Parts: sequence; C-alpha cells; structure tokens
Amino acid sequence: MTTVQVELGSRRYPIHIGEGLLGRSELLAPHIVGRQVLVVTDEQVAPHYLQSVLASFSRYETEQLILPAGESHKTLATLNQIFDVLLERRFSRDAMLVALGGGVIGDMVGFAAASYQRGVDFIQMPTTLLAQVDSSVGGKTAVNHPLGKNMIGAFHQPRCVIADTSTLKSLDPRQLRAGCAEVIKYGLISDANFFAWLESHLEEVLSLKPQAIAEAVRRSCENKAAVVSADEHERGQRALLNLGHTFGHAIETGLGYGRWIHGEAVAAGMVMAAEMSVRLCMLPEQEAVRIRELLERAKLPTELPSELGVESMLKHMSVDKKVLAGKLRLVLLEAIGQALLVDDFDPVALRETLQVA
Amino acid sequence: MTTVQVELGSRRYPIHIGEGLLGRSELLAPHIVGRQVLVVTDEQVAPHYLQSVLASFSRYETEQLILPAGESHKTLATLNQIFDVLLERRFSRDAMLVALGGGVIGDMVGFAAASYQRGVDFIQMPTTLLAQVDSSVGGKTAVNHPLGKNMIGAFHQPRCVIADTSTLKSLDPRQLRAGCAEVIKYGLISDANFFAWLESHLEEVLSLKPQAIAEAVRRSCENKAAVVSADEHERGQRALLNLGHTFGHAIETGLGYGRWIHGEAVAAGMVMAAEMSVRLCMLPEQEAVRIRELLERAKLPTELPSELGVESMLKHMSVDKKVLAGKLRLVLLEAIGQALLVDDFDPVALRETLQVA
Repeated sequence: MTTVQVELGSRRYPIHIGEGLLGRSELLAPHIVGRQVLVVTDEQVAPHYLQSVLASFSRYETEQLILPAGESHKTLATLNQIFDVLLERRFSRDAMLVALGGGVIGDMVGFAAASYQRGVDFIQMPTTLLAQVDSSVGGKTAVNHPLGKNMIGAFHQPRCVIADTSTLKSLDPRQLRAGCAEVIKYGLISDANFFAWLESHLEEVLSLKPQAIAEAVRRSCENKAAVVSADEHERGQRALLNLGHTFGHAIETGLGYGRWIHGEAVAAGMVMAAEMSVRLCMLPEQEAVRIRELLERAKLPTELPSELGVESMLKHMSVDKKVLAGKLRLVLLEAIGQALLVDDFDPVALRETLQVA
Repeated sequence: MTTVQVELGSRRYPIHIGEGLLGRSELLAPHIVGRQVLVVTDEQVAPHYLQSVLASFSRYETEQLILPAGESHKTLATLNQIFDVLLERRFSRDAMLVALGGGVIGDMVGFAAASYQRGVDFIQMPTTLLAQVDSSVGGKTAVNHPLGKNMIGAFHQPRCVIADTSTLKSLDPRQLRAGCAEVIKYGLISDANFFAWLESHLEEVLSLKPQAIAEAVRRSCENKAAVVSADEHERGQRALLNLGHTFGHAIETGLGYGRWIHGEAVAAGMVMAAEMSVRLCMLPEQEAVRIRELLERAKLPTELPSELGVESMLKHMSVDKKVLAGKLRLVLLEAIGQALLVDDFDPVALRETLQVA
C-alpha cells in the first residue's frame, strides 16, 4: 500500500492506494467520530463489494443504499433518495457517509454529505480508474442539471480515500480505457516525465499489472493533489485540470449524457485542445501527434462524434462552467507537461478546430 | 445608516441598517465582480420592492424570478426553479444572486448561490424583522425536507446585507411580532442589558419608531455576528443561537410547516427552555417570569399548541439537527443573558416541561 496525502490544512486527507484495501477496517476507524455509517453504492458495484465493505464497518450502526447505476441518475431526484434514507434513519451531524463506486456515486454522495445538515463527513471508495485518479481527489461534488453537467454542487473534502486497485479487475474494459484518458491528462498538464513513462508502460497499466496500475494511480493522485492544494476552490491554477473538459462536456451534453462516457469525451477533448494549440502556433505539431497516438493506443476516441456539428459544439461549450462572464476560457497546451489557461484567442481557430475534427 | 461588520476573515461582510436603503446602488457596486445579476423574490414582496431593487442594478444584465411565498415552498423543487433560470440565462461563476424577501427567500437563494457551479456570490436584502436579525447573519442556508426543517443546506456567507428598516412597514404585524421573538432571544443568550433595554422599549420597537427599530436590529446583528465570528460552522458556541429552536422546530414540524410561523414557535420554545431550566434548578423562577411576560407583551405564544402531545413533541425533537449521535442537546438558561448547552439532563424534566406546557 502507498499513501498520497492531500495537503489542505484542517481538511488534509490521505489517499490509500493498493491491492485488497476494501474491507480493511483499520484504515477507516481513525476517521469516524460517530456511530452511524451509510454506505451508498449502485446496482453494478453492490454485488461485487458491498458485503465486504459493510463487514469492515461492523462496529458501527450501518445502513446501505443501492442506487441505479449511470450518469443519467446523477440528479437532484436521486440525491433526494440519499436524504430520505438519512432522515428516515435519523442520521445525525456526526454520521459518516461512504461512497462505494465510480465517479457518479462519489459526486452524488459527496454532495449529499456536503449538504446534509449543512455538512457531514464522508469517505470515498472509488472502484473505477476514473474515480481513483480524478473524482476522488479534490473535493468537487455535484449533480447534473438537464442544461449542464455538474452544475449543482459543492467543494467538500472526504476524510479519506481508499483506492483499491483490485476493484479495477471487475471494471468494464471501456471504463478502464476511459479512466486512462484522465491518467494521460496529468502527464499533459504538468508532468512530461509521467507522460513519457505512460508511453512505455501503457499496456502494463491497461492489463492491470499490479505495480504499473498502482504507479499510474499514485502519480495521477500526486499531480492532482499538488494542484488542488494550491487552489482548492478553482480560482486559478486548478482550472488547468479541465484540460479537454470544455470540449468533452460539450460532447457529452450534445450527445445526451451516457452515450459517450466521460473519459472518452475528455480524450477527444484533449485532442481538440492540442490541435487548437497547434493551430494557434503554441504547440509543436509533433507533440500533438504523440498525444493522439498515445490516446489511440488506449483505444480512446480522438475525433468528434460525427453527429455533432460545429454550431452544436459551440452552443454547448458556452454554457460550460469555464465560461467567465460570457467569455470562453480554454485550457490549451504549450508543451506536453505544460498546460495554460487562454481566454484571449481567435474564435476562428476554435471554429476551424471543430470543423476539422 | 449604521453598519455592523461580520468578521470572518476573507468572508468578512457588512450589514447596512437603516431607512430607505433599498435602491441605493452605491452600497451594492463594491461587491459585484461580474455583469449578471439575478434578483429572486416572492409574490408578496415583489409588488412592494422589486422595481426599485431592479433599478439599483441598472448597470448590470439583470434577471428576476418571483417565487411563490411561504415556508411550504422552501423545497428542493423550488430551489431547482432558481437553477433553471440560472442555466437558461447562462449565468456564469461570477454572477451575483440577490435574495429580496424574508428568511425563506434568503435561505433558498443562499443555498442556490452556495451550490450553483459549486458557489457564486449573493447579497441579502431581508424585508422581514426575522430575516434582518437572524437569517441574514451568519451564512446558514437551507431548504426543508418532508422529515425535517433546514435539513439540506450549506454554510455560505453573503457579500453584503442591506437591512432596510422601512420595509418593515409593509410587514404583516404577526410577522413583526415573530421577528421580535428572535430579537428577544439575543438578549436572553448573551446580552442582559439588551433584554432590559427591550423591556423598556418593546412598544417603540413594535411600532417601528425609526431609532428604536434600528437599535433593535443593530444590537441583534452585533450579538449574532459576535457568536458567528467565533464559530462559523457551529462546532460549539454557535449552537447557543438555537435557544428555543429545538422545541420550536418540533412545534413547526408537528403542526405542519406554516401553521405557526417560525418566530412564534421559537417564542413558545424559549418559554419551554426557560421553564425546563427552572425545573432543573438552573434558572431562578422570577427570570422565567420576566421572559414569559416580555414575550406576552409582544403578543407571542408562550404555550404549546393544544393539539401537540408530549410524544409527538419528543419524536420531532429527536430528529432535530441539534441531536448529536442520538443524544438530545438543549440550549438552556442560567440567567437572562447567559445561555448554555446541556446534553446531560434528566429526561423526566423534559417530559414534565412538555406536559405542563
């Protein structure tokens, strides 16, 4: 087991990474102050891990809630199901919520914890690669609104994260590749060495060789934790983590949530960002080629879905959260390992990038 | 105009108190960083003040939303109407929300601001006495759940508060008296001099003599601000502000929201707290008499509604947020001006207090 500390003062928390960590109650006990624990998971994850997780909380009064799986259920209505259980079971302010599942469960349970009685504790147990390297680090929680993804939420840090890499064996290969898009993203944003390491270890990561997958998760978490510690509430630097996401969210919204999964949309979005960077003469073309090639090796999409036109993309990009006072800000690349925020760009370059893609 | 500063570090904000402050755009401008402003109010308040408030934002892109009035609409569903407008109009992260109305509007708009895109700014323009002295100070925001009041919310501080005392002239006298319950509460918790001042000025306050009402609002805000500054997230001291509220919430929940308004329930709740304090030999009986007499002069209820039995009260009190790990904590009194938290009390005393009331 390896542990990454997310440094956030009084909200500091550990991410434990390794094989077979679910069920290890000694990792949980230091973080629980009350007696009540609610484990929330979804229909896909529950058969695999719910019983062993419940067993690890056997010293507490434990309740469970199994939600329908999928991004389409990441809504205020599903959130309210969590509140219903908490109130029916009279959970108090020192209760602990546990998010066992992927990013959808993590985001919803995190937001439920942020808002139940104006804030209770929660623990993340991410069971997808995407959730282990992204949604479980940094305290962003949210639900979707029909007009935009993650539009309703809060910053709320977990007390600890248990990233059990053996859970990835039960993961749909498509989900694993999608998670890999975010892993590659950390290399692109701030860690050229990590990108190069991925170029030589991608297949080991994707085949879940224990050392390789733990290393990929650890370095991703370290990269994200460094950014989050410096800018918890996304006033500046943290926005770099959205590389590929403004394009990606527009793809997800344009297609309807769930057609492409998040990491897939981000993969295509990172290619858009790289190609636009080349078009603006910021990034050497051969670096954009390396980016596209690595994503292709991970069998991730690198082009826009054919049914989405330029106008549809532009419309959906303009309601993205990264739009500041009506002005679209994009995360672009100066080099592999060096992303930057750009809000003063030629709109023609954006249009052309979307047309070619 | 007088100004009370709420000291909360980077979240420090001013409360401006006085006659005719709505519409004074120079009080607002320093707090607005973007271009988009959404003014949210309700059907009762809109005809009186919405136009002059909109006029004071004439330099911005302004939208309005008029919600149905009343506690029964303080729900996730109504909250979602605010999100609908924000997203339909493509409000960005630097937008400003304005809560024009009583505590229901303030709590909902505050929670909408806390959660829209994980947090945008808001300004409070409280138009009831209760909202001016209570809900607009301290950043508590929330909506109700069918199983409990204010169960879903956030701590989110406004950028500024405009407490225009002339708006109280249009207030239903019942609402004015209910607000007075909270004013009296501040005297009880921590300011014996203020309680004594109220004993000699209550009628001036209730008849809205400009100096008296401004003084009552100012001293209430100062008392609350002092507590909030010391304990923003209610880990300890701030819970004293809930004097009368555990009883009061149980009354409101038991009767169904809206039958008794909040301040009325708190008034009866403060009498319960005082009488239980006497029963536990903590408070001299003559102080409980002074409390009851002042509330009676304000024509506030000082007894439980006849249809609520002891069992119903106990049941509803136990889901109150002040219940810590299943243990009921009550705010009781050692003296007028000296409240304290008690969680180790004889349950028979509670039962007897409810029986006699």
